[in-house]
Amino acid sequence: MKNKLTIIKIGGNVIKDSDSLNSFLDLFAQVKGNKILVHGGGSIATTMAQKLGVDTQMVEGRRVTSKEMLDITIMCYAGLINKKMVSYLQTKKINSIGLSGADLNCISAQKRPPKNGIDYGFVGDINDSSVNTKSIELLIQNNFTPIFCSITHNKDGGLLNTNADTIATELACQLQIIFDVQLVYCFEKDGVLLSESDPSSLIKNLTLKHYQKLLSENIIHSGMIPKLENCFKAKNNRIHVSIKNAYNLLSPIETKIS
Amino acid sequence: MKNKLTIIKIGGNVIKDSDSLNSFLDLFAQVKGNKILVHGGGSIATTMAQKLGVDTQMVEGRRVTSKEMLDITIMCYAGLINKKMVSYLQTKKINSIGLSGADLNCISAQKRPPKNGIDYGFVGDINDSSVNTKSIELLIQNNFTPIFCSITHNKDGGLLNTNADTIATELACQLQIIFDVQLVYCFEKDGVLLSESDPSSLIKNLTLKHYQKLLSENIIHSGMIPKLENCFKAKNNRIHVSIKNAYNLLSPIETKIS
Repeated sequence: MKNKLTIIKIGGNVIKDSDSLNSFLDLFAQVKGNKILVHGGGSIATTMAQKLGVDTQMVEGRRVTSKEMLDITIMCYAGLINKKMVSYLQTKKINSIGLSGADLNCISAQKRPPKNGIDYGFVGDINDSSVNTKSIELLIQNNFTPIFCSITHNKDGGLLNTNADTIATELACQLQIIFDVQLVYCFEKDGVLLSESDPSSLIKNLTLKHYQKLLSENIIHSGMIPKLENCFKAKNNRIHVSIKNAYNLLSPIETKIS
Repeated sequence: MKNKLTIIKIGGNVIKDSDSLNSFLDLFAQVKGNKILVHGGGSIATTMAQKLGVDTQMVEGRRVTSKEMLDITIMCYAGLINKKMVSYLQTKKINSIGLSGADLNCISAQKRPPKNGIDYGFVGDINDSSVNTKSIELLIQNNFTPIFCSITHNKDGGLLNTNADTIATELACQLQIIFDVQLVYCFEKDGVLLSESDPSSLIKNLTLKHYQKLLSENIIHSGMIPKLENCFKAKNNRIHVSIKNAYNLLSPIETKIS
Protein backbone atom coordinates (compact mmCIF):
# COMPACT_ATOMS: atom_id res chain seq x y z
CA MET A 1 0.00 0.00 0.00
CA LYS A 2 1.23 3.47 -0.90
CA ASN A 3 1.86 6.10 1.79
CA LYS A 4 -0.56 8.99 1.95
CA LEU A 5 0.42 12.46 0.75
CA THR A 6 -1.71 15.59 1.07
CA ILE A 7 -0.98 18.37 -1.44
CA ILE A 8 -2.55 21.68 -0.49
CA LYS A 9 -2.68 24.70 -2.75
CA ILE A 10 -3.19 28.09 -1.16
CA GLY A 11 -3.92 31.24 -3.09
CA GLY A 12 -5.98 34.36 -3.35
CA ASN A 13 -6.44 36.91 -0.61
CA VAL A 14 -5.33 34.47 2.10
CA ILE A 15 -1.73 35.19 1.14
CA LYS A 16 -2.12 38.96 1.01
CA ASP A 17 -1.54 39.70 4.69
CA SER A 18 0.48 37.77 7.24
CA ASP A 19 -2.33 37.48 9.81
CA SER A 20 -4.66 35.62 7.46
CA LEU A 21 -1.80 33.61 6.02
CA ASN A 22 -0.61 32.53 9.46
CA SER A 23 -4.18 31.53 10.46
CA PHE A 24 -4.15 29.19 7.49
CA LEU A 25 -0.62 27.95 8.25
CA ASP A 26 -1.72 27.09 11.82
CA LEU A 27 -4.25 24.69 10.27
CA PHE A 28 -1.82 23.43 7.64
CA ALA A 29 0.61 22.55 10.44
CA GLN A 30 -2.08 20.31 11.96
CA VAL A 31 -2.63 18.26 8.79
CA LYS A 32 -1.35 14.81 9.66
CA GLY A 33 1.16 12.81 7.64
CA ASN A 34 3.19 13.69 4.54
CA LYS A 35 2.25 17.00 3.01
CA ILE A 36 3.25 19.58 0.42
CA LEU A 37 2.13 23.19 0.22
CA VAL A 38 1.92 25.06 -3.10
CA HIS A 39 1.41 28.81 -3.14
CA GLY A 40 1.03 31.67 -5.57
CA GLY A 41 0.96 35.25 -4.41
CA GLY A 42 -0.50 37.20 -7.31
CA SER A 43 -1.66 40.41 -5.68
CA ILE A 44 1.60 40.92 -3.76
CA ALA A 45 3.51 40.85 -7.06
CA THR A 46 1.02 43.29 -8.58
CA THR A 47 1.46 45.70 -5.66
CA MET A 48 5.25 45.42 -5.95
CA ALA A 49 5.06 46.05 -9.71
CA GLN A 50 3.05 49.22 -9.03
CA LYS A 51 5.60 50.41 -6.47
CA LEU A 52 8.41 49.79 -8.97
CA GLY A 53 6.49 51.43 -11.80
CA VAL A 54 6.41 48.22 -13.83
CA ASP A 55 3.34 47.89 -16.04
CA THR A 56 1.28 44.79 -15.43
CA GLN A 57 0.10 44.18 -18.95
CA MET A 58 -3.09 42.14 -19.32
CA VAL A 59 -4.13 40.29 -22.47
CA GLU A 60 -7.63 38.81 -22.51
CA GLY A 61 -7.85 38.99 -18.74
CA ARG A 62 -4.53 37.23 -18.17
CA ARG A 63 -1.31 38.81 -17.09
CA VAL A 64 1.69 38.99 -19.39
CA THR A 65 4.95 38.18 -17.61
CA SER A 66 7.54 40.61 -18.98
CA LYS A 67 11.24 40.28 -18.02
CA GLU A 68 10.72 42.91 -15.30
CA MET A 69 7.55 41.22 -14.07
CA LEU A 70 9.31 37.85 -13.98
CA ASP A 71 11.97 39.26 -11.65
CA ILE A 72 9.22 40.67 -9.43
CA THR A 73 7.44 37.31 -9.23
CA ILE A 74 10.73 35.56 -8.38
CA MET A 75 11.40 38.12 -5.64
CA CYS A 76 7.89 37.98 -4.19
CA TYR A 77 7.03 34.30 -4.59
CA ALA A 78 10.38 32.51 -4.11
CA GLY A 79 11.72 35.18 -1.75
CA LEU A 80 9.36 37.14 0.44
CA ILE A 81 6.24 34.93 0.61
CA ASN A 82 7.99 31.58 0.55
CA LYS A 83 10.57 32.36 3.23
CA LYS A 84 8.01 33.96 5.56
CA MET A 85 5.87 30.82 5.26
CA VAL A 86 8.83 28.54 5.92
CA SER A 87 9.97 30.61 8.87
CA TYR A 88 6.46 30.62 10.41
CA LEU A 89 5.98 26.87 9.86
CA GLN A 90 9.27 26.19 11.66
CA THR A 91 7.71 27.71 14.79
CA LYS A 92 4.93 25.10 14.45
CA LYS A 93 7.48 22.27 14.37
CA ILE A 94 6.98 21.67 10.65
CA ASN A 95 10.41 21.08 9.15
CA SER A 96 9.59 22.98 6.00
CA ILE A 97 11.79 23.66 3.01
CA GLY A 98 10.97 26.36 0.49
CA LEU A 99 11.44 25.38 -3.13
CA SER A 100 11.16 26.76 -6.62
CA GLY A 101 11.08 24.40 -9.57
CA ALA A 102 14.81 25.05 -10.12
CA ASP A 103 15.80 23.74 -6.68
CA LEU A 104 16.83 20.09 -7.07
CA ASN A 105 15.36 20.46 -10.55
CA CYS A 106 11.99 19.69 -8.91
CA ILE A 107 9.71 21.16 -11.59
CA SER A 108 10.70 22.05 -15.13
CA ALA A 109 8.60 23.90 -17.68
CA GLN A 110 8.57 25.19 -21.22
CA LYS A 111 8.09 28.85 -22.04
CA ARG A 112 4.62 29.14 -23.51
CA PRO A 113 4.89 29.82 -27.26
CA PRO A 114 2.95 32.82 -28.60
CA LYS A 115 -0.50 31.71 -29.80
CA ASN A 116 -3.01 33.60 -31.95
CA GLY A 117 -0.71 36.61 -31.79
CA ILE A 118 -0.70 36.63 -27.98
CA ASP A 119 2.64 36.32 -26.19
CA TYR A 120 2.29 35.75 -22.44
CA GLY A 121 6.02 36.26 -21.96
CA PHE A 122 7.94 34.35 -19.31
CA VAL A 123 5.15 31.95 -18.43
CA GLY A 124 5.95 28.28 -18.03
CA ASP A 125 3.75 25.39 -19.06
CA ILE A 126 4.41 22.05 -17.43
CA ASN A 127 3.88 18.60 -18.88
CA ASP A 128 3.61 14.98 -17.80
CA SER A 129 7.32 14.62 -17.18
CA SER A 130 7.94 17.98 -15.49
CA VAL A 131 8.07 16.73 -11.91
CA ASN A 132 11.26 15.25 -10.45
CA THR A 133 9.43 12.76 -8.26
CA LYS A 134 12.64 11.16 -6.97
CA SER A 135 14.00 14.33 -5.32
CA ILE A 136 10.62 15.23 -3.84
CA GLU A 137 10.14 11.69 -2.50
CA LEU A 138 13.55 11.87 -0.85
CA LEU A 139 12.65 15.11 0.94
CA ILE A 140 9.33 13.67 2.14
CA GLN A 141 10.94 10.43 3.30
CA ASN A 142 13.12 12.55 5.57
CA ASN A 143 10.04 14.21 7.10
CA PHE A 144 10.73 17.47 5.32
CA THR A 145 7.68 19.46 4.19
CA PRO A 146 8.19 21.04 0.75
CA ILE A 147 6.71 24.51 0.29
CA PHE A 148 6.58 25.19 -3.45
CA CYS A 149 6.25 28.66 -4.87
CA SER A 150 4.88 29.05 -8.39
CA ILE A 151 8.24 29.55 -10.11
CA THR A 152 9.61 26.82 -12.38
CA HIS A 153 12.70 26.62 -14.61
CA ASN A 154 13.32 25.65 -18.21
CA LYS A 155 16.48 23.57 -17.52
CA ASP A 156 18.38 26.10 -19.62
CA GLY A 157 19.04 28.63 -16.86
CA GLY A 158 15.73 30.45 -17.23
CA LEU A 159 13.09 30.85 -14.55
CA LEU A 160 9.40 30.94 -15.46
CA ASN A 161 6.21 32.12 -13.78
CA THR A 162 3.78 29.20 -13.61
CA ASN A 163 0.20 28.94 -12.41
CA ALA A 164 0.10 27.57 -8.85
CA ASP A 165 -3.08 25.52 -9.42
CA THR A 166 -1.36 23.81 -12.34
CA ILE A 167 1.75 23.11 -10.26
CA ALA A 168 -0.38 21.53 -7.52
CA THR A 169 -2.23 19.41 -10.10
CA GLU A 170 0.94 18.20 -11.82
CA LEU A 171 2.65 17.44 -8.51
CA ALA A 172 -0.43 15.39 -7.56
CA CYS A 173 -0.64 13.54 -10.88
CA GLN A 174 3.05 12.73 -11.06
CA LEU A 175 3.55 11.89 -7.36
CA GLN A 176 0.53 9.58 -7.55
CA ILE A 177 2.93 6.86 -8.79
CA ILE A 178 4.61 6.89 -5.38
CA PHE A 179 1.95 8.12 -2.97
CA ASP A 180 -1.79 7.89 -2.37
CA VAL A 181 -2.45 11.58 -3.06
CA GLN A 182 -5.16 13.84 -1.65
CA LEU A 183 -5.28 17.22 -3.42
CA VAL A 184 -6.93 20.21 -1.73
CA TYR A 185 -7.36 23.63 -3.34
CA CYS A 186 -7.86 26.30 -0.67
CA PHE A 187 -9.15 29.83 -1.05
CA GLU A 188 -11.53 32.25 0.70
CA LYS A 189 -14.76 30.39 -0.10
CA ASP A 190 -16.18 27.12 1.18
CA GLY A 191 -15.93 25.49 -2.25
CA VAL A 192 -17.91 25.79 -5.48
CA LEU A 193 -21.02 27.87 -4.83
CA LEU A 194 -24.14 27.94 -7.04
CA SER A 195 -24.56 31.56 -6.03
CA GLU A 196 -21.29 33.38 -5.39
CA SER A 197 -22.65 35.43 -2.47
CA ASP A 198 -24.56 32.60 -0.77
CA PRO A 199 -22.42 30.19 1.29
CA SER A 200 -25.43 27.88 1.73
CA SER A 201 -25.38 27.21 -2.03
CA LEU A 202 -22.24 25.09 -1.66
CA ILE A 203 -22.08 22.12 -4.03
CA LYS A 204 -20.92 19.27 -1.79
CA ASN A 205 -20.20 16.86 -4.63
CA LEU A 206 -19.38 18.04 -8.10
CA THR A 207 -19.38 15.56 -10.97
CA LEU A 208 -17.95 16.28 -14.42
CA LYS A 209 -21.47 16.18 -15.88
CA HIS A 210 -22.77 18.70 -13.36
CA TYR A 211 -19.72 20.92 -13.94
CA GLN A 212 -20.30 20.90 -17.71
CA LYS A 213 -23.94 21.83 -17.17
CA LEU A 214 -23.02 24.72 -14.86
CA LEU A 215 -20.40 25.82 -17.38
CA SER A 216 -22.94 25.88 -20.23
CA GLU A 217 -25.31 27.91 -18.02
CA ASN A 218 -22.49 30.36 -17.24
CA ILE A 219 -22.93 29.70 -13.50
CA ILE A 220 -19.28 28.70 -13.36
CA HIS A 221 -17.14 31.33 -15.05
CA SER A 222 -13.84 33.27 -15.14
CA GLY A 223 -11.17 32.14 -12.64
CA MET A 224 -13.12 29.07 -11.51
CA ILE A 225 -12.88 27.48 -14.97
CA PRO A 226 -9.10 26.80 -15.05
CA LYS A 227 -9.27 25.79 -11.36
CA LEU A 228 -11.97 23.21 -12.08
CA GLU A 229 -10.22 22.01 -15.24
CA ASN A 230 -7.24 21.27 -12.98
CA CYS A 231 -9.54 19.52 -10.50
CA PHE A 232 -11.00 17.19 -13.11
CA LYS A 233 -7.60 16.46 -14.61
CA ALA A 234 -6.44 15.28 -11.18
CA LYS A 235 -9.69 13.39 -10.58
CA ASN A 236 -9.17 11.59 -13.91
CA ASN A 237 -5.82 10.47 -12.52
CA ARG A 238 -7.66 8.78 -9.60
CA ILE A 239 -6.66 11.51 -7.14
CA HIS A 240 -8.96 12.52 -4.28
CA VAL A 241 -9.73 16.18 -4.98
CA SER A 242 -11.57 18.85 -2.99
CA ILE A 243 -11.95 22.60 -2.90
CA LYS A 244 -12.37 24.24 0.47
CA ASN A 245 -12.04 27.30 2.66
CA ALA A 246 -8.46 27.94 3.77
CA TYR A 247 -9.72 28.89 7.24
CA ASN A 248 -11.77 25.67 7.43
CA LEU A 249 -9.03 23.36 6.28
CA LEU A 250 -9.70 20.76 8.97
CA SER A 251 -13.52 20.83 8.70
CA PRO A 252 -15.55 18.50 6.44
CA ILE A 253 -17.15 21.48 4.63
CA GLU A 254 -15.96 21.37 1.03
CA THR A 255 -16.75 20.67 -2.59
CA LYS A 256 -15.64 17.16 -3.34
CA ILE A 257 -14.83 16.46 -6.97
CA SER A 258 -16.58 13.17 -7.65
CA MET B 1 38.81 9.90 7.82
CA LYS B 2 36.27 12.64 7.30
CA ASN B 3 34.93 13.46 3.82
CA LYS B 4 36.08 16.71 2.26
CA LEU B 5 33.74 19.69 1.99
CA THR B 6 34.55 22.97 0.24
CA ILE B 7 32.60 26.02 1.42
CA ILE B 8 32.87 28.97 -0.95
CA LYS B 9 31.64 32.45 -0.15
CA ILE B 10 30.95 34.78 -3.04
CA GLY B 11 30.24 38.46 -2.68
CA GLY B 12 30.93 41.94 -3.91
CA ASN B 13 30.63 43.07 -7.50
CA VAL B 14 30.78 39.50 -8.84
CA ILE B 15 27.10 39.12 -7.95
CA LYS B 16 26.02 42.44 -9.44
CA ASP B 17 25.53 41.31 -13.03
CA SER B 18 24.62 37.90 -14.35
CA ASP B 19 27.55 37.66 -16.82
CA SER B 20 30.21 37.99 -14.13
CA LEU B 21 28.19 35.84 -11.73
CA ASN B 22 27.81 33.06 -14.29
CA SER B 23 31.56 33.18 -15.09
CA PHE B 24 32.18 32.47 -11.43
CA LEU B 25 29.47 29.79 -11.30
CA ASP B 26 31.11 28.03 -14.28
CA LEU B 27 34.22 27.65 -12.10
CA PHE B 28 32.24 26.77 -8.97
CA ALA B 29 30.58 23.95 -10.94
CA GLN B 30 34.05 22.50 -11.63
CA VAL B 31 35.06 22.33 -7.95
CA LYS B 32 35.27 18.62 -7.18
CA GLY B 33 33.54 16.85 -4.30
CA ASN B 34 31.06 18.08 -1.70
CA LYS B 35 30.54 21.81 -1.77
CA ILE B 36 28.42 24.63 -0.40
CA LEU B 37 28.05 28.14 -1.82
CA VAL B 38 27.24 31.14 0.39
CA HIS B 39 26.28 34.45 -1.17
CA GLY B 40 25.33 37.96 -0.19
CA GLY B 41 24.13 40.47 -2.73
CA GLY B 42 24.49 43.83 -1.05
CA SER B 43 24.47 46.25 -3.94
CA ILE B 44 21.45 44.64 -5.62
CA ALA B 45 19.43 45.21 -2.44
CA THR B 46 20.66 48.81 -2.28
CA THR B 47 19.60 49.43 -5.90
CA MET B 48 16.18 47.88 -5.19
CA ALA B 49 15.78 50.02 -2.08
CA GLN B 50 16.49 53.13 -4.16
CA LYS B 51 13.91 52.09 -6.76
CA LEU B 52 11.34 51.53 -4.00
CA GLY B 53 12.23 54.80 -2.27
CA VAL B 54 13.36 53.02 0.89
CA ASP B 55 16.12 54.85 2.76
CA THR B 56 19.26 52.82 3.32
CA GLN B 57 20.27 54.22 6.66
CA MET B 58 23.92 53.91 7.59
CA VAL B 59 25.30 54.06 11.12
CA GLU B 60 29.09 54.23 11.49
CA GLY B 61 29.55 52.90 7.98
CA ARG B 62 27.24 49.93 8.46
CA ARG B 63 23.75 49.55 7.08
CA VAL B 64 20.73 49.50 9.36
CA THR B 65 18.20 46.85 8.35
CA SER B 66 14.77 48.44 8.80
CA LYS B 67 11.57 46.35 8.41
CA GLU B 68 11.29 47.58 4.80
CA MET B 69 14.96 46.89 4.10
CA LEU B 70 14.64 43.39 5.58
CA ASP B 71 11.84 42.58 3.11
CA ILE B 72 14.03 43.88 0.28
CA THR B 73 16.96 41.70 1.35
CA ILE B 74 14.68 38.64 1.58
CA MET B 75 13.32 39.37 -1.91
CA CYS B 76 16.73 40.00 -3.47
CA TYR B 77 18.89 37.44 -1.66
CA ALA B 78 16.52 34.48 -1.05
CA GLY B 79 14.48 35.19 -4.17
CA LEU B 80 16.10 36.82 -7.18
CA ILE B 81 19.82 36.11 -6.69
CA ASN B 82 19.48 32.70 -5.10
CA LYS B 83 17.03 31.24 -7.62
CA LYS B 84 18.98 32.58 -10.61
CA MET B 85 22.13 30.92 -9.22
CA VAL B 86 20.33 27.63 -8.62
CA SER B 87 18.75 27.68 -12.06
CA TYR B 88 22.11 28.39 -13.75
CA LEU B 89 23.93 25.70 -11.75
CA GLN B 90 21.32 23.14 -12.80
CA THR B 91 22.45 23.70 -16.41
CA LYS B 92 25.98 22.76 -15.25
CA LYS B 93 24.69 19.46 -13.79
CA ILE B 94 25.08 20.71 -10.22
CA ASN B 95 22.00 19.53 -8.33
CA SER B 96 21.76 22.71 -6.33
CA ILE B 97 19.21 23.67 -3.71
CA GLY B 98 18.72 27.27 -2.62
CA LEU B 99 18.36 27.78 1.11
CA SER B 100 17.80 30.48 3.67
CA GLY B 101 18.49 29.79 7.33
CA ALA B 102 14.77 29.12 7.87
CA ASP B 103 14.66 26.24 5.38
CA LEU B 104 15.05 22.99 7.34
CA ASN B 105 15.98 25.31 10.21
CA CYS B 106 19.51 25.27 8.75
CA ILE B 107 20.82 28.47 10.37
CA SER B 108 19.26 30.28 13.31
CA ALA B 109 20.26 33.69 14.65
CA GLN B 110 19.50 36.22 17.33
CA LYS B 111 18.47 39.77 16.52
CA ARG B 112 21.42 41.95 17.42
CA PRO B 113 20.59 43.95 20.56
CA PRO B 114 21.12 47.73 20.36
CA LYS B 115 24.60 48.61 21.61
CA ASN B 116 26.00 52.02 22.58
CA GLY B 117 22.74 53.54 21.39
CA ILE B 118 23.08 52.01 17.92
CA ASP B 119 20.27 49.73 16.73
CA TYR B 120 21.14 47.86 13.53
CA GLY B 121 17.55 46.66 13.19
CA PHE B 122 16.76 43.24 11.75
CA VAL B 123 20.31 41.96 11.70
CA GLY B 124 21.00 38.45 12.93
CA ASP B 125 24.04 37.32 14.88
CA ILE B 126 24.84 33.65 14.83
CA ASN B 127 26.54 31.60 17.53
CA ASP B 128 28.26 28.26 18.05
CA SER B 129 25.01 26.27 17.94
CA SER B 130 23.32 28.12 15.07
CA VAL B 131 23.98 25.56 12.36
CA ASN B 132 21.74 22.52 11.93
CA THR B 133 24.56 20.25 10.82
CA LYS B 134 22.31 17.17 10.59
CA SER B 135 20.01 18.59 7.90
CA ILE B 136 22.90 20.01 5.88
CA GLU B 137 24.80 16.71 6.11
CA LEU B 138 21.74 14.86 4.81
CA LEU B 139 21.50 17.15 1.79
CA ILE B 140 25.20 16.73 1.02
CA GLN B 141 25.05 12.94 1.45
CA ASN B 142 22.44 12.93 -1.30
CA ASN B 143 24.77 14.84 -3.63
CA PHE B 144 22.75 18.02 -3.33
CA THR B 145 24.70 21.28 -3.39
CA PRO B 146 23.34 23.82 -0.88
CA ILE B 147 23.35 27.45 -2.03
CA PHE B 148 22.88 29.61 1.06
CA CYS B 149 21.72 33.20 0.88
CA SER B 150 22.54 35.50 3.77
CA ILE B 151 19.10 35.35 5.42
CA THR B 152 18.68 33.52 8.73
CA HIS B 153 15.72 33.09 11.10
CA ASN B 154 15.20 33.56 14.83
CA LYS B 155 13.16 30.33 15.34
CA ASP B 156 10.26 32.57 16.35
CA GLY B 157 8.94 33.27 12.86
CA GLY B 158 11.26 36.19 12.16
CA LEU B 159 13.77 36.41 9.32
CA LEU B 160 17.05 38.27 9.80
CA ASN B 161 19.67 39.77 7.51
CA THR B 162 23.03 38.21 8.34
CA ASN B 163 26.54 38.86 7.08
CA ALA B 164 27.46 36.30 4.41
CA ASP B 165 31.12 36.05 5.50
CA THR B 166 29.93 35.20 9.01
CA ILE B 167 27.52 32.57 7.68
CA ALA B 168 30.31 30.94 5.67
CA THR B 169 32.59 30.96 8.72
CA GLU B 170 29.99 29.45 11.06
CA LEU B 171 29.01 26.81 8.51
CA ALA B 172 32.69 25.88 8.23
CA CYS B 173 33.31 25.82 12.01
CA GLN B 174 30.19 23.80 12.81
CA LEU B 175 30.37 21.39 9.86
CA GLN B 176 34.03 20.72 10.74
CA ILE B 177 32.73 18.06 13.19
CA ILE B 178 31.47 16.03 10.22
CA PHE B 179 33.67 17.08 7.30
CA ASP B 180 37.24 18.05 6.53
CA VAL B 181 36.40 21.65 5.58
CA GLN B 182 38.14 23.96 3.13
CA LEU B 183 36.83 27.54 3.32
CA VAL B 184 37.34 29.94 0.42
CA TYR B 185 36.31 33.59 0.42
CA CYS B 186 35.98 34.87 -3.13
CA PHE B 187 35.81 38.45 -4.38
CA GLU B 188 37.22 40.63 -7.17
CA LYS B 189 40.82 40.65 -5.94
CA ASP B 190 43.49 37.97 -5.87
CA GLY B 191 43.59 37.95 -2.06
CA VAL B 192 45.01 40.28 0.56
CA LEU B 193 47.14 42.95 -1.14
CA LEU B 194 49.79 45.09 0.56
CA SER B 195 48.90 47.81 -1.88
CA GLU B 196 45.25 47.79 -2.94
CA SER B 197 45.97 48.79 -6.54
CA ASP B 198 48.95 46.49 -7.08
CA PRO B 199 48.09 42.82 -7.77
CA SER B 200 51.78 41.90 -7.46
CA SER B 201 51.65 42.88 -3.77
CA LEU B 202 49.60 39.76 -2.96
CA ILE B 203 50.37 38.23 0.41
CA LYS B 204 50.60 34.51 -0.32
CA ASN B 205 50.61 33.43 3.31
CA LEU B 206 49.09 35.54 6.04
CA THR B 207 49.78 34.67 9.67
CA LEU B 208 47.89 36.14 12.61
CA LYS B 209 51.03 38.00 13.66
CA HIS B 210 51.50 39.54 10.21
CA TYR B 211 47.79 40.46 10.11
CA GLN B 212 48.00 42.21 13.47
CA LYS B 213 51.04 44.15 12.30
CA LEU B 214 49.28 45.24 9.06
CA LEU B 215 46.25 46.19 11.12
CA SER B 216 48.29 48.37 13.45
CA GLU B 217 49.90 50.04 10.43
CA ASN B 218 46.43 50.67 8.94
CA ILE B 219 47.43 48.75 5.79
CA ILE B 220 44.46 46.49 6.39
CA HIS B 221 41.35 48.53 7.01
CA SER B 222 37.56 48.92 6.58
CA GLY B 223 35.76 45.93 5.01
CA MET B 224 38.83 43.68 5.07
CA ILE B 225 38.89 43.70 8.89
CA PRO B 226 35.67 41.73 9.56
CA LYS B 227 36.54 39.42 6.62
CA LEU B 228 39.95 38.63 8.11
CA GLU B 229 38.51 38.27 11.62
CA ASN B 230 36.25 35.59 10.14
CA CYS B 231 39.25 34.00 8.42
CA PHE B 232 41.26 33.70 11.63
CA LYS B 233 38.25 32.42 13.58
CA ALA B 234 37.94 29.59 11.05
CA LYS B 235 41.70 29.02 11.03
CA ASN B 236 41.61 28.71 14.84
CA ASN B 237 39.09 25.92 14.32
CA ARG B 238 41.70 24.04 12.22
CA ILE B 239 39.95 24.88 8.95
CA HIS B 240 41.93 25.41 5.74
CA VAL B 241 41.19 29.02 4.80
CA SER B 242 42.04 31.09 1.73
CA ILE B 243 40.97 34.30 0.05
CA LYS B 244 41.00 34.42 -3.72
CA ASN B 245 39.75 35.91 -6.93
CA ALA B 246 36.30 34.62 -7.90
CA TYR B 247 37.41 34.44 -11.55
CA ASN B 248 40.54 32.49 -10.55
CA LEU B 249 38.78 30.01 -8.32
CA LEU B 250 40.63 27.00 -9.74
CA SER B 251 44.09 28.61 -9.85
CA PRO B 252 46.65 28.42 -7.01
CA ILE B 253 46.83 32.24 -6.75
CA GLU B 254 45.47 33.18 -3.32
CA THR B 255 46.14 34.41 0.16
CA LYS B 256 46.39 31.40 2.40
CA ILE B 257 45.60 32.02 6.06
CA SER B 258 48.38 30.25 7.90
